[in-house]
Amino acid sequence: MIDNPYYSQALHGPYELFDLGDFALESGGTLRQAKLAYATFGTLSAARDNAILITTWFSGTSKIMEQAYVGAGRALDPAKYFIVIVNQIGNGLSTSPNNTPFPGGMANFPHVTIGDDVRAQHKLLTEKFNITTLALVFGASMGAQQTYEWAVRYPDMVQRAAPVAGTAQNTPHDFIYAQSLIDAITSDPAWAGGWYTHPNAVREGLRRHSRLWAVMGFSTELYKQESWRALGFSSVDDFLLNLLDATFLPMDPNVLLCMAWKWQRGDVARHTGGDLKAALGRIKARTLVMPISTDMFFVVPDMEAEQKLIPNSQLRVLNTLWGHIGVMGVDPGYLAQFDAAVGELLATPV
Amino acid sequence: MIDNPYYSQALHGPYELFDLGDFALESGGTLRQAKLAYATFGTLSAARDNAILITTWFSGTSKIMEQAYVGAGRALDPAKYFIVIVNQIGNGLSTSPNNTPFPGGMANFPHVTIGDDVRAQHKLLTEKFNITTLALVFGASMGAQQTYEWAVRYPDMVQRAAPVAGTAQNTPHDFIYAQSLIDAITSDPAWAGGWYTHPNAVREGLRRHSRLWAVMGFSTELYKQESWRALGFSSVDDFLLNLLDATFLPMDPNVLLCMAWKWQRGDVARHTGGDLKAALGRIKARTLVMPISTDMFFVVPDMEAEQKLIPNSQLRVLNTLWGHIGVMGVDPGYLAQFDAAVGELLATPV
Repeated sequence: MIDNPYYSQALHGPYELFDLGDFALESGGTLRQAKLAYATFGTLSAARDNAILITTWFSGTSKIMEQAYVGAGRALDPAKYFIVIVNQIGNGLSTSPNNTPFPGGMANFPHVTIGDDVRAQHKLLTEKFNITTLALVFGASMGAQQTYEWAVRYPDMVQRAAPVAGTAQNTPHDFIYAQSLIDAITSDPAWAGGWYTHPNAVREGLRRHSRLWAVMGFSTELYKQESWRALGFSSVDDFLLNLLDATFLPMDPNVLLCMAWKWQRGDVARHTGGDLKAALGRIKARTLVMPISTDMFFVVPDMEAEQKLIPNSQLRVLNTLWGHIGVMGVDPGYLAQFDAAVGELLATPV
Repeated sequence: MIDNPYYSQALHGPYELFDLGDFALESGGTLRQAKLAYATFGTLSAARDNAILITTWFSGTSKIMEQAYVGAGRALDPAKYFIVIVNQIGNGLSTSPNNTPFPGGMANFPHVTIGDDVRAQHKLLTEKFNITTLALVFGASMGAQQTYEWAVRYPDMVQRAAPVAGTAQNTPHDFIYAQSLIDAITSDPAWAGGWYTHPNAVREGLRRHSRLWAVMGFSTELYKQESWRALGFSSVDDFLLNLLDATFLPMDPNVLLCMAWKWQRGDVARHTGGDLKAALGRIKARTLVMPISTDMFFVVPDMEAEQKLIPNSQLRVLNTLWGHIGVMGVDPGYLAQFDAAVGELLATPV
């Protein structure tokens, strides 16, 4: 374990830890004394029928999900709902390569899948909170992968699902993009096969990784219109340094690699021998599939093709120039569209 | 100079060399005893009115342009036209980092611009062939940058212009993408500041560069439909290895870097103090602007925005799943659309 102040209560808390015990993974590995880091907002009703689960994206933690999506007067309002935000395994706060003691940490950390996350989250919700019904599962990007996995794996438990900017079955192109992120990090000699002396030593690999998000994470039109000026940046270089690099460079390389591997293999059709239609056909949740109009890798047609296989579903495109990274909520127009759509979804009886 | 059998008459010929003499560059450098490598097809008419110039894209040579676009019964038919294909400076065949003797080669090779290319090509056409009118200038990608530069710089000489999958003014997003290609190569320790012992030693950097074309060069839908099967590849890995890696790994790293720097700075508005509208307004050529429907970086809206600023112009979207790399002509449907459009353009009197 290497001390990295980025993954701390100070920066990402407050969060609680739920003890999963020794947790067997789909890949064959076992996480020993595994923990899920989570945060809750609001109060569980006596009928236990107002619970909402929020999952996290690649590199994200419960903090950004709270800041971007949870609040008084918002669709996800703690005055109405008991909201549980769970950090995905491997994200640096839940059990991860950076916080697992010898010999299981760093490069020895086992491969984790979206299915592992959802089983662990199910354990948390049922055992800790005695929740058997979820009014909504919402997640964006890798959080959408978890959302779909929830709806397919536990169809009787999920009343509504809101996957944003992510797919039930990862696409071949997405796999290749994620691989370029992996290669950017592992090609840094300082990565040293995962046994770096300090995460910050891998700064060049992390910087290249960050700059691939600059290529794929926004949209051509955003750069052309210099929409970053609205956030107070003075030039495109200033924007990339102080938004993207500032976000990614403090992170742990093995943590990012763990999530990228998981992202590449997200696929609900595992449950049905590779038959995606059969897997999505299992979903009972009222599902609102929400691509981002300018997303360059979870593109609208890919999300729409899946939506058409989900019985009780609708497509709602969220319009923003911010591309995939729009999920971070920097565009108020995007958040307004999200709140309107999810507010409607929650108001619809199931 | 390092011997690299990739840049040879055997693989890319036959081509001729035109002596530019000492050629002063816009960046302030000078290419000493500079040469343009070019190939011609067909016969110049007595009236010298049937000349067509074809330019080359990033990493391309005259050979691929001939193979993909020139032929009997095609729009660009040597039976009708005198076709000159000119290799861009820095592409490995014309004067380039790999073929320039000490001290001007490798990392010392000066920065070259699209304007330099077009001035050099003008010298070749006027001095060698006494051509004062071009029935058509056609180029794709960086070749489109040269096409626009021709139409703006020598408006009275260019009767028709057909820029495919490229812009007159490079976009900020494109700059960032090209930078990721540069970073992929220069981050390889074997690159050694441009003083590698042998181009093949930079294989890891070249491979990462190749795989960024896998991310941005095709389309999500192409991968989804596994369109690569039509070319005889057996898996996506087989496809990426034997199409992309096979294309890029034999190349010279400094050659690619020279072209990427040039690509980033393509901008006809240099001629008009930054006023793109004024620059494009100078064009007298009948211009057919041809984006590729699925291009991820020279996107349709960016090309359309420029087309609207060109007086005598039309937009014609070329539909293919092959994305930007569609320019290589692997999709017969794309070539048929190109031939129909350019055939029409050539048949239209000016």
